[in-house]
Amino acid sequence: MSTLPEVAIGVIGAGMMADAAVDAVARWRLLVAPPGAPRLRVLCDVDPSRLERLAPAFERTATDWRAVVGSRDVSLVYVAVPHHLHREIAAGAIEAGKDVLVEKPMGLDLAAAEAIAAAASARPRQIVHVSNEFPFHPAAIHARELVASRRALGDLPFQYSGWHLHGSDVDPKKPINWKRQAATCGPGGVMADLGAHVYWMASLLGFRATSVSSALGKFFRERPKAAGSTETAPCDTWDKALLHARCANGALATFRVDRVATGVDDVWGFRAEGSGGVVGFDSERRDETLHLDRQGGSGMTHVPRGSRAAYPVRIGDIFGFGFRDVLLQMWAAVVEACATRRPSPLLPDARDGLYFQRVTDAALRSHATRAWADVASA
Amino acid sequence: MSTLPEVAIGVIGAGMMADAAVDAVARWRLLVAPPGAPRLRVLCDVDPSRLERLAPAFERTATDWRAVVGSRDVSLVYVAVPHHLHREIAAGAIEAGKDVLVEKPMGLDLAAAEAIAAAASARPRQIVHVSNEFPFHPAAIHARELVASRRALGDLPFQYSGWHLHGSDVDPKKPINWKRQAATCGPGGVMADLGAHVYWMASLLGFRATSVSSALGKFFRERPKAAGSTETAPCDTWDKALLHARCANGALATFRVDRVATGVDDVWGFRAEGSGGVVGFDSERRDETLHLDRQGGSGMTHVPRGSRAAYPVRIGDIFGFGFRDVLLQMWAAVVEACATRRPSPLLPDARDGLYFQRVTDAALRSHATRAWADVASA
Amino acid sequence: MSTLPEVAIGVIGAGMMADAAVDAVARWRLLVAPPGAPRLRVLCDVDPSRLERLAPAFERTATDWRAVVGSRDVSLVYVAVPHHLHREIAAGAIEAGKDVLVEKPMGLDLAAAEAIAAAASARPRQIVHVSNEFPFHPAAIHARELVASRRALGDLPFQYSGWHLHGSDVDPKKPINWKRQAATCGPGGVMADLGAHVYWMASLLGFRATSVSSALGKFFRERPKAAGSTETAPCDTWDKALLHARCANGALATFRVDRVATGVDDVWGFRAEGSGGVVGFDSERRDETLHLDRQGGSGMTHVPRGSRAAYPVRIGDIFGFGFRDVLLQMWAAVVEACATRRPSPLLPDARDGLYFQRVTDAALRSHATRAWADVASA
Amino acid sequence: MSTLPEVAIGVIGAGMMADAAVDAVARWRLLVAPPGAPRLRVLCDVDPSRLERLAPAFERTATDWRAVVGSRDVSLVYVAVPHHLHREIAAGAIEAGKDVLVEKPMGLDLAAAEAIAAAASARPRQIVHVSNEFPFHPAAIHARELVASRRALGDLPFQYSGWHLHGSDVDPKKPINWKRQAATCGPGGVMADLGAHVYWMASLLGFRATSVSSALGKFFRERPKAAGSTETAPCDTWDKALLHARCANGALATFRVDRVATGVDDVWGFRAEGSGGVVGFDSERRDETLHLDRQGGSGMTHVPRGSRAAYPVRIGDIFGFGFRDVLLQMWAAVVEACATRRPSPLLPDARDGLYFQRVTDAALRSHATRAWADVASA
Repeated sequence: MSTLPEVAIGVIGAGMMADAAVDAVARWRLLVAPPGAPRLRVLCDVDPSRLERLAPAFERTATDWRAVVGSRDVSLVYVAVPHHLHREIAAGAIEAGKDVLVEKPMGLDLAAAEAIAAAASARPRQIVHVSNEFPFHPAAIHARELVASRRALGDLPFQYSGWHLHGSDVDPKKPINWKRQAATCGPGGVMADLGAHVYWMASLLGFRATSVSSALGKFFRERPKAAGSTETAPCDTWDKALLHARCANGALATFRVDRVATGVDDVWGFRAEGSGGVVGFDSERRDETLHLDRQGGSGMTHVPRGSRAAYPVRIGDIFGFGFRDVLLQMWAAVVEACATRRPSPLLPDARDGLYFQRVTDAALRSHATRAWADVASA
Repeated sequence: MSTLPEVAIGVIGAGMMADAAVDAVARWRLLVAPPGAPRLRVLCDVDPSRLERLAPAFERTATDWRAVVGSRDVSLVYVAVPHHLHREIAAGAIEAGKDVLVEKPMGLDLAAAEAIAAAASARPRQIVHVSNEFPFHPAAIHARELVASRRALGDLPFQYSGWHLHGSDVDPKKPINWKRQAATCGPGGVMADLGAHVYWMASLLGFRATSVSSALGKFFRERPKAAGSTETAPCDTWDKALLHARCANGALATFRVDRVATGVDDVWGFRAEGSGGVVGFDSERRDETLHLDRQGGSGMTHVPRGSRAAYPVRIGDIFGFGFRDVLLQMWAAVVEACATRRPSPLLPDARDGLYFQRVTDAALRSHATRAWADVASA
Repeated sequence: MSTLPEVAIGVIGAGMMADAAVDAVARWRLLVAPPGAPRLRVLCDVDPSRLERLAPAFERTATDWRAVVGSRDVSLVYVAVPHHLHREIAAGAIEAGKDVLVEKPMGLDLAAAEAIAAAASARPRQIVHVSNEFPFHPAAIHARELVASRRALGDLPFQYSGWHLHGSDVDPKKPINWKRQAATCGPGGVMADLGAHVYWMASLLGFRATSVSSALGKFFRERPKAAGSTETAPCDTWDKALLHARCANGALATFRVDRVATGVDDVWGFRAEGSGGVVGFDSERRDETLHLDRQGGSGMTHVPRGSRAAYPVRIGDIFGFGFRDVLLQMWAAVVEACATRRPSPLLPDARDGLYFQRVTDAALRSHATRAWADVASA
Repeated sequence: MSTLPEVAIGVIGAGMMADAAVDAVARWRLLVAPPGAPRLRVLCDVDPSRLERLAPAFERTATDWRAVVGSRDVSLVYVAVPHHLHREIAAGAIEAGKDVLVEKPMGLDLAAAEAIAAAASARPRQIVHVSNEFPFHPAAIHARELVASRRALGDLPFQYSGWHLHGSDVDPKKPINWKRQAATCGPGGVMADLGAHVYWMASLLGFRATSVSSALGKFFRERPKAAGSTETAPCDTWDKALLHARCANGALATFRVDRVATGVDDVWGFRAEGSGGVVGFDSERRDETLHLDRQGGSGMTHVPRGSRAAYPVRIGDIFGFGFRDVLLQMWAAVVEACATRRPSPLLPDARDGLYFQRVTDAALRSHATRAWADVASA
């Protein structure tokens, strides 16, 4: 592998997503044709106690993000910190000349996203991507290929339905965390966090919202400060967001992003319908693309996809994917983008990240005015 | 059966729904405990040629609806004519002192529905019901019992999702018919026709809309005048309606009524979610109630219901229902209401019929103003 | 309808299946093109108290079956009595020159089936059919068409899996009845009763067993004499039968017929697999044919069939079927056979009925010898 | 991690399963509480050219397996070579005092399995396990817990159905490989390879076969020597195996192992039924355990399990598993067994491996005699 272009990575934030990055890099050998060689240079967290566990996977550690973005030997900075810190760090890394992968949402709010997008726009030669794992499921990749290459939806796209549902917050005893507070999660609440998955998959299939109308729900106003505690903290984010959208391609869309979806663990999917057919996916049967080609007759076909991935992996292509396999695929796309200097078509760039925040912002305005709101355009 | 109270029926309109009524009455013996004895007295249609086929099932025929509502020996009038004729005939029958079953929608538009509701309101001792077959599926009945008796949804209802989808109109060559033209179908289009099923099932489970926001689609503007014809007629009704609603019980709701649902024949269902659990139904697996009781653990249970009907039928209670079995159940409810002088809780009355039109009217106003619209209240 | 050939029916046995026959005839008008005119001439039962309820649907009643088969004005005799009575009555009716529809199984045991088949064979101009409702589901009809006309399974049929499962007998408190005792149900137990459905659907798709190996289960040896009773009666029939078969077309087959299928109400289905594709059906999603055409790609297609029946019915062809709709279809096939003097290809004739008993008999011999047993051939 | 007991591994055979082992070890950090520290000491293959790719993950390489089993610094030998080599190497490793993980099947045939089991039996302090990944799916683990701790099946187990299906061999153009030839795959063909998964999951749930009756299929007698080649080689293994079994717990069982399952990629699952309920799993919906508790009512519950694994992993417990996550779990169990000197209850030991071969052998005898065959007991 020594001849592959090396991508030297600095990871900022030593939480769950740093774990995910380390796991992806550790299994790089699994890729049949690795698109580059990731190298975990530095791990950074303001809290030194959080560095310890993952430190052995890196060459060094840091506690000040500026030390990372200022390092000559780092070319890609992965920003995996709470949302309110994205703006300063992501924009700072871009301005320092680094390629950047920033966790979704790109910024805490519209202003933050605009700042990061502006920084990216000023430095068009740098790679700036927003993290988005789910579209890398083989069946989702296949869905995109169907739509792109075969005009599977026909001349008249009718409707896109997209959803990402969690049920964890149905339990009133679940303690508060930073993702349930607007100051750290952002005003969009569940839309900022899970919504990016939904808006991006729709974009990949050609459904881009120009205006939205929202129905937002906030069912729990406070939560225990800790497990079992009777002390509570305010819970001021949106739990549930139902969006209608009108899309640039003439279709209507519905987006549902939800943390109080009773009975659900973590489920996402989509269904795109047009005069020519249907393309869909449901993570509960995640080895299958759903496809109906009206020319070919009636009836939805469940097309098995197994592990036929964008970046083929060893150990068979019939065995089903899991979330961690999807993470490896996303990192392969990031490394390929950095190595080839071409952004990945499967990953949102800074303009896409800004678009997600504009959808969320329009949904918030729609809620405030009880009316449809236009999604700002460039 | 001679001692059962007789319900003498006049049917106005000799189309498909008259066929359905004749079929239901013909198999009355199937009911283990028939709630009354229907008698098909008179069939009426302005076009005498349409009377011939079904005439043998009736005692006599007529071509003027006034002759039916003026008949002493008719106690129940079934109004099964195109929507634009509902107002005059249904209101006329009520005013003539008859019990009335009127096909959905109760009237062509809000004004028509208001007129019929006013007539009904002025004669509270008469039974006035709007036709609605689908809630009589054993599994849907069970869903209602779960919600009613066990508080299956808990203290905090979160969301109701209801749908009724057809795919027939995806084909641009499908000829025009009176249900695709506003003059005869009404301004609500698909909402008037299929929407009633969706709004009523939601009502039965306790979800009643107080305001709505709509996204309406009209994808085909003209259709062939006849099969194979190159002449076209304007198609000026809504094909697709996506509604958000806020409900009186605090929940959000989504309603989808659609005639351009690619790949679908005729599918309906619902899912009600709350802090205590979930209750759902999908006509693609129509022998099952879906149920999750959060007290009892996690996971959606598929509860088999077979033919355990509101009005038990012979020939086993394990064999699955079809649409025509549901028709028999609805007619049993209508006859019981007439025989006992108590409206059926499973069927919409005139106020419910008015409510459906108010939802549709609010959806149309929402479309016009691009804003949420309140559903008028009594 | 007066010009349609009349089929005058005598029904022997006033139980559930007589109810079913009356229901089918009562709704004859539903058929778009009725293939004949059934006329319910006489209902017969040894117990006069059982005649009362259904008598009004018939022209007269009787208590001796000989009076029915000896009636000049009866052309079709429907034998719907306990299994141990089939031989005498069905053979007697055939010998008296009548067309016969006999409930499954054709006889109590192999000897009885042979006697009835011999009687039928001696009078080849008479119609003799064995009752079999389930293949009349529109989706099952479609499956047969696929296999027949398109060679959907390819050159090399691999495997047929067929099942009919009940769960009612899992409850040890369910009282004994005549279907749970060998003297009246026959030595085949569940195979005689539910097995006929399974073997026939396989036959319709081209899978005919030449030898079988069985694994039979008898889990409950006694049952209460009546609901709530502590007195018990012996339960000496097979509860569960798992069969392997080798078929004349080279394929392997599995048949599962079961009354102790925990958690199931009443479910049946099949899956035929070959080098060219797959055709299947599952009554839990009974509006759909499952189809995979290997030439057309991979993936199982769920083909919606709704009510697109062998004998089209009014009230739309998109609304789903139930068991009672299937009964009407079967009776249409019986009446057509009698009216046209051509047996229905969708219904078993006496040779098929004999074949079913030969499969059951081979399964019993297989159990006794712990070895494969050949299915006797003509 | 330095204080964890180290398990020094020698891998014999540099094929796909060596890749899998390297991947599992590479992501060890993902385990929340790693049960030991695996160390990849030596990779061995007779073909030096196959060593190159994976060599960097190991401390050294070898071309003679004896060098591995004779190494002092290796404690666990992983035997991942074609089946005909298992006997010599696995028995040799055991006799050299090593712990052993041997790929399924434990030996080429019954004699080979007996030899390996005898070696293990003579050295009871060594850990000897047979590889078996699938039961490590969180939902399968949960199924076992349900059966074990709650007596979910009740007093009377009725039936176990287990299956592992591949569809790859439906294509006659698929080239021959060593798994399709009896000399290298063994006389059991598909039973040896996929059967082990099926028999073991049944064992884990308490269903152990005492006698079997088989229906075996060999549909393709030759295959191309290479992709696109017109030269063919004999294909002399069984493609399809359908087994009936009688189990020690009184239940009947069916096992289906198949390489010509048209339309299937790679699907496995089971359904255990008893008087108390049902426990099941289907890899097409692999995040769910299926469960019916008859005490708790009727209806199958789909219990979401996500990543709630035997060996908890970082990166959330709601995100679904894939095959490679299951591999990590299996390796965690192997390392724990070696570190604690206690065999894993989730993995087959040498007696279990022998039992699998005895089932396969009985199935072959059953085929030869066309009769039930007893499974040899210890």
